[in-house]
Amino acid sequence: MAPKAPKAPKSPIPNHFFFLLLILSAFSAAAASGKLRSRRPCRRLVFYFHDILYNGKNAANATAAIVGAPAWGNTTVLTGMNHFGDVVVFDDPITVDNNLHGTPVGRAQGFYIYDKKEIFTAWLGFSFVFNSTEHRGSLNFAGADPLMNKTRDVSVIGGTGDFFMARGIATLSTDSFEGEVYFRLRADIKLFECW
Amino acid sequence: MAPKAPKAPKSPIPNHFFFLLLILSAFSAAAASGKLRSRRPCRRLVFYFHDILYNGKNAANATAAIVGAPAWGNTTVLTGMNHFGDVVVFDDPITVDNNLHGTPVGRAQGFYIYDKKEIFTAWLGFSFVFNSTEHRGSLNFAGADPLMNKTRDVSVIGGTGDFFMARGIATLSTDSFEGEVYFRLRADIKLFECW
Amino acid sequence: MAPKAPKAPKSPIPNHFFFLLLILSAFSAAAASGKLRSRRPCRRLVFYFHDILYNGKNAANATAAIVGAPAWGNTTVLTGMNHFGDVVVFDDPITVDNNLHGTPVGRAQGFYIYDKKEIFTAWLGFSFVFNSTEHRGSLNFAGADPLMNKTRDVSVIGGTGDFFMARGIATLSTDSFEGEVYFRLRADIKLFECW
Repeated sequence: MAPKAPKAPKSPIPNHFFFLLLILSAFSAAAASGKLRSRRPCRRLVFYFHDILYNGKNAANATAAIVGAPAWGNTTVLTGMNHFGDVVVFDDPITVDNNLHGTPVGRAQGFYIYDKKEIFTAWLGFSFVFNSTEHRGSLNFAGADPLMNKTRDVSVIGGTGDFFMARGIATLSTDSFEGEVYFRLRADIKLFECW
Repeated sequence: MAPKAPKAPKSPIPNHFFFLLLILSAFSAAAASGKLRSRRPCRRLVFYFHDILYNGKNAANATAAIVGAPAWGNTTVLTGMNHFGDVVVFDDPITVDNNLHGTPVGRAQGFYIYDKKEIFTAWLGFSFVFNSTEHRGSLNFAGADPLMNKTRDVSVIGGTGDFFMARGIATLSTDSFEGEVYFRLRADIKLFECW
Repeated sequence: MAPKAPKAPKSPIPNHFFFLLLILSAFSAAAASGKLRSRRPCRRLVFYFHDILYNGKNAANATAAIVGAPAWGNTTVLTGMNHFGDVVVFDDPITVDNNLHGTPVGRAQGFYIYDKKEIFTAWLGFSFVFNSTEHRGSLNFAGADPLMNKTRDVSVIGGTGDFFMARGIATLSTDSFEGEVYFRLRADIKLFECW
């Protein structure tokens, strides 16, 4: 018997279903490659942390100390050539405002290494360890800190507790400093992965 | 010819298609902002690693050494004030059980820095480098390690080989220690991004 | 009136809609657990960076310096036992080809720690800080570097600016070296999260 008309066979699944599946795959692929990702933070937090560097005379209230230095330096005084090679360990109080004597909500713990002879720049690896009624857990950071820039971005590379699996950007700015002993950093933390 | 009734024109794409697209977008947005993400690990691994710190007498079997110290310390003996400022490099065997002499499946390589004067805490940056029939590749870790807590979480910040692009949390616990020379850590690794 | 046939009631939403929702959920869950993720890079970049280690005589053009060493070493000369324990800070020029004197497109800044007594291996924490017409921003890296392997993978743990939220793998290879003072690394950067 010859076919009556060039009509597609009646299928229980409508044709546009396949078209939708195609779009679905495209969306998923886009999500995987990041094309659909939002640049609006899913969480934003601002904190200050306060670094008091040991200089041979302030053992009682220092929160940081030089623990490595190049051949031409030492661990008591910051080295010349923009401190190139100085490794500093810190345990700085974190506050919600810019007052050093405000109630700390946690500690900024880790290290920085001055890494350029010509200007001040550093490499940072540290955590915010929270211990307040509002926040429990930690945020981990890493990245280059070109200190002389008004703002500089480091990566939020992970988090635990309230910040489980967090990723994002922290914009650091030097809020204040006194000589080479005290400086206060403002951290504007923008998370783009929140879980 | 006048239209017979206020009926929508017959479109080749059914109306509910647009409704589905809407839902699709919502799902994608939710995925991007993390709301749908599962807190069930996509992979879980438990290992032990064994740290034998050089103390001036155990050069032969030490797996770790002090390589930085504050002005008031040195690189042979751990410094007072809870070792604040001591930088330790390690290359520790990884085993699947808590036996130091078990067959290593890889090496835990990296560093920790004691970073608090009042209690023992450290900042960790290290990798598990696997070299066994079961696992090839590496897992990279970073985070704060408040040693005195029974368990503490650090971030899995990446991976290579079998652990390509991994992210997650490693829960560390001190499984055993002998004075300040030997300690054994248990790492309960939970990956939440597996690729 | 008895029903004429066991026919489902006519619904304004077709049945296959629910089937599609089911698939949609499955796709989203798969995306969350990583099963659908592509191993094709969303971005690929190749650079070279050049490390000239200070050795007591080359202060003028050194780009790196030893800043930590074990008890049996010092910060002027690399230590025996495969440099185990040497901490090196660097600020190396990045070029697009393998010519040390090519126009730098940025700086590779950070540190490495030799971490094994038996062979050369190191742990790396560093950033590529770009400052060219083509790229602005930074890429942050961490991971184990078994130097003697022809290629070795470290993790791209984050990025800023043009590399906002990047994640991926950088395959490092030693492109050239001269004694223990100069070495040139090739970095084949493959990003799998691009935003």
